Amino acid sequence: MTFTDTTPEDLNKTMQESHLAFLSYKNFSGKKKAEFLRAIADEIEVLGSELVQTAMRETNLPEARIINERGRTTGHCRMFADLVEEGSWVEARIDTAQPDRMPAPKPDIRKMLVPIGPVVVFGAANFPLAYSTAGGDTASALAAGCTVVVKAHPAHTETSALVASAIQKAMEKTGMPKGVFQHVYGVGFEVGQALVKHPLTKAVGFTGSFAGGKALFDLANQRPEPIPVFAEMSSINPVILLPETLSRDAGATASKLAASITLGVGQFCTNPGLIIAMEGDGLNRFLQSLSAEIQKVLPGTMLHQGIADNYHQKLNQALAQKGVMVEGQSKETGNNEQGRPLVASAPAEAFVKNPALAEEVFGPFSLIIRCKNIDELHAVVNRIRGQLTTTIIADEAELLKHRNLLNILTEKAGRLIMNGVPTGVEVCPSMMHGGPFPATTDSRFTAVGTDAIKRFARPVAYQHFADALLPDELKEANPLGIWRLVNGKWNK
Amino acid sequence: MTFTDTTPEDLNKTMQESHLAFLSYKNFSGKKKAEFLRAIADEIEVLGSELVQTAMRETNLPEARIINERGRTTGHCRMFADLVEEGSWVEARIDTAQPDRMPAPKPDIRKMLVPIGPVVVFGAANFPLAYSTAGGDTASALAAGCTVVVKAHPAHTETSALVASAIQKAMEKTGMPKGVFQHVYGVGFEVGQALVKHPLTKAVGFTGSFAGGKALFDLANQRPEPIPVFAEMSSINPVILLPETLSRDAGATASKLAASITLGVGQFCTNPGLIIAMEGDGLNRFLQSLSAEIQKVLPGTMLHQGIADNYHQKLNQALAQKGVMVEGQSKETGNNEQGRPLVASAPAEAFVKNPALAEEVFGPFSLIIRCKNIDELHAVVNRIRGQLTTTIIADEAELLKHRNLLNILTEKAGRLIMNGVPTGVEVCPSMMHGGPFPATTDSRFTAVGTDAIKRFARPVAYQHFADALLPDELKEANPLGIWRLVNGKWNK
Repeated sequence: MTFTDTTPEDLNKTMQESHLAFLSYKNFSGKKKAEFLRAIADEIEVLGSELVQTAMRETNLPEARIINERGRTTGHCRMFADLVEEGSWVEARIDTAQPDRMPAPKPDIRKMLVPIGPVVVFGAANFPLAYSTAGGDTASALAAGCTVVVKAHPAHTETSALVASAIQKAMEKTGMPKGVFQHVYGVGFEVGQALVKHPLTKAVGFTGSFAGGKALFDLANQRPEPIPVFAEMSSINPVILLPETLSRDAGATASKLAASITLGVGQFCTNPGLIIAMEGDGLNRFLQSLSAEIQKVLPGTMLHQGIADNYHQKLNQALAQKGVMVEGQSKETGNNEQGRPLVASAPAEAFVKNPALAEEVFGPFSLIIRCKNIDELHAVVNRIRGQLTTTIIADEAELLKHRNLLNILTEKAGRLIMNGVPTGVEVCPSMMHGGPFPATTDSRFTAVGTDAIKRFARPVAYQHFADALLPDELKEANPLGIWRLVNGKWNK
Repeated sequence: MTFTDTTPEDLNKTMQESHLAFLSYKNFSGKKKAEFLRAIADEIEVLGSELVQTAMRETNLPEARIINERGRTTGHCRMFADLVEEGSWVEARIDTAQPDRMPAPKPDIRKMLVPIGPVVVFGAANFPLAYSTAGGDTASALAAGCTVVVKAHPAHTETSALVASAIQKAMEKTGMPKGVFQHVYGVGFEVGQALVKHPLTKAVGFTGSFAGGKALFDLANQRPEPIPVFAEMSSINPVILLPETLSRDAGATASKLAASITLGVGQFCTNPGLIIAMEGDGLNRFLQSLSAEIQKVLPGTMLHQGIADNYHQKLNQALAQKGVMVEGQSKETGNNEQGRPLVASAPAEAFVKNPALAEEVFGPFSLIIRCKNIDELHAVVNRIRGQLTTTIIADEAELLKHRNLLNILTEKAGRLIMNGVPTGVEVCPSMMHGGPFPATTDSRFTAVGTDAIKRFARPVAYQHFADALLPDELKEANPLGIWRLVNGKWNK
């Protein structure tokens, strides 16, 4: 199959259609949107092994991983279907009239979330299914009542086209208006830029590099009408090893982290790229075990040549910094398409002085920062920029003595993990996949879990409206039976 | 009293103190923050007539209005106190562990909103109390757990200083750390710009002109670490008069709108600056009545000379546009500090062709757009940019025939009003005071009502945390008794 870039004229037509479709789709009931989302999940499953084989070929990811990712994709489509079918996500608030209030009567006011408008989604390189064509951005935007235009990621165009065809079938089967979902192609930056700049685009979802996400963010803010960009960009997911716990569990901690660092050739946005610990016997044993574990992991073929080239370049750059020494690496060198697992270390002093040591190296790499004392550890933690996650390896008794550290870490990330690894993102209401800049462009929203829908909605209040003209969510009789805050009390 | 601009060195010290105070204040309980907010309200009341007289002198607003605004200010402080004392605003979500889940165990994850960091608030010219030093931005930010730095509005510095002294007393009485609230001065742009650019500033609240708000928004997005700016800027609050209803109620509608247009010398952000109607006998009678009503309203002294000058300039600009004709004006000319009430009209054709007719004229002015038919009316409505409010004057039967219009209007504003006037903003959970650009820089948030707190918070998830280390809001036993979504079910 060959794909040619969508032309500027076609892009304009695409956005016009998306806008037109939005004006009707935004009023579809939760039940109707749920049918559509479930049909998308069903049609993706119908694609069967063709989808799995195509994704494997285009991304070099193993079968088990693709099958797992397909499950996550159909899973979040069905999760959002359940969410909008139930309906309480719109945050309905009702304050009834008080005609006798003095000095002025109080009118009836009712508020709920409504969809923000046509959304442009950029497929991610590292998740050909779960963060791409029917990924979390698309599913949450469709659930909110937004129409979606997906720009296929050039590294897995065929996979994207297959998923788009499944969504197309789901649209037909459930009677969706033309233009609810559209799929466009573009190898260079032009198509993406034109979509973000188009006046009918109302929000953007992106998962990828800092350079890419930041460029789209800037472009969106420079529009005559700025629009929100939800870009998940760059995170080194620091792991802090507290000394007492480490001295007891050095070996087990090293095994868990080695697995997390090298999972999927290190190509997860939650890969632990920075480990912070205090010098001592515990750290020595940890480094020994980690090095031994990393040696055993073979190089893996990366998602595409660009990502492999980037890994080699960023790795060499990191290793060339003052104070950085290799602690261990895979016993195999691997070829130029592969990522060779490697761990290095540097003293806290070097990290504090040199911002280059905090840069993301996307791949199976982690840098261990050796701190002489707790003050150095605090200095390192204070230097950390915004992250998706931070992890603390410590038992309860030890962490209770370091509440100050926890207090600072809360400012640094969207998700704090105690005694675990950052990889493995649950798709559930409590998930926060996002964090302070530069992890994302908007720390107030998550890209994963039910709350991801809130990125694509805004509140609208209806004042003194006749019941028949209100959306069902706000009608007096609560015909949908959703949770609502009525005169300050929650009920359904 | 004289006030000198805060120096760059002092501003840096101010933000350092704000950051330090934040690291402890953010952990204060809802109960403790509620005490503080209630003490602010109490201390503002203690200022008594000195505050009222000072505000009257600095803003030219009448006593009744200042007393009313003081009530609204103390009211929202107490409303946010109640909100955070109750505690459910943090949107707690808990998904408990499933250790036996296949293929991988599910960890315990718990999420809640936490404060975003030090917030810079710009006092507004048109609300010396309710949108200024202890205004909705300050109260909601303090309620969220953020520290606040207020830049006093140069037009009412003494009022601002008095309110700041009340907040200072409340801090002392309730044992708040130094730096929780700070107050700075600046006549030019430099102080405000330095505050927005300071790396420790994490969010900005602003109410004022489009030029001012947009400049701060751009500055905040150009920082190495972009931060959210909640700027409420410009809105002409269109009112649509449907013909059948108008032909019945022309006189009463004109009276209500004349009062809304001239309320407070037209210096409300929800002032109805644009009225859209279909030509015919109803509109003729409406214009006649409106003109008669406007003639009777005397010019009023505006907030300060700059606002008066701006009104005269913008008014002359609007009246100079092709097709615009004066329909009626106050029988008194007024002096150059005053705003003379005036209404004008223009044909739909002129409005559609000329974006200048959609520009805000801040003061007691409204432009009536005369449409030949429903298609012209739709064309005009389609041209409307983002607004705080839109209003439809129509009875239920007539509006049911115009659902298309309602469908478009939902895209244009944060609050839709049926048979009312846009002025008069209720402070309650269902209020949406915000709207699509250029009304505000972020249509997803309200500046008024309990949900205003959400502007200054972001979610953080805690994974696999020991109960003792979790915030009280997320502890297993729910010691605060707040509403939480636990494994998909709401309970407390």
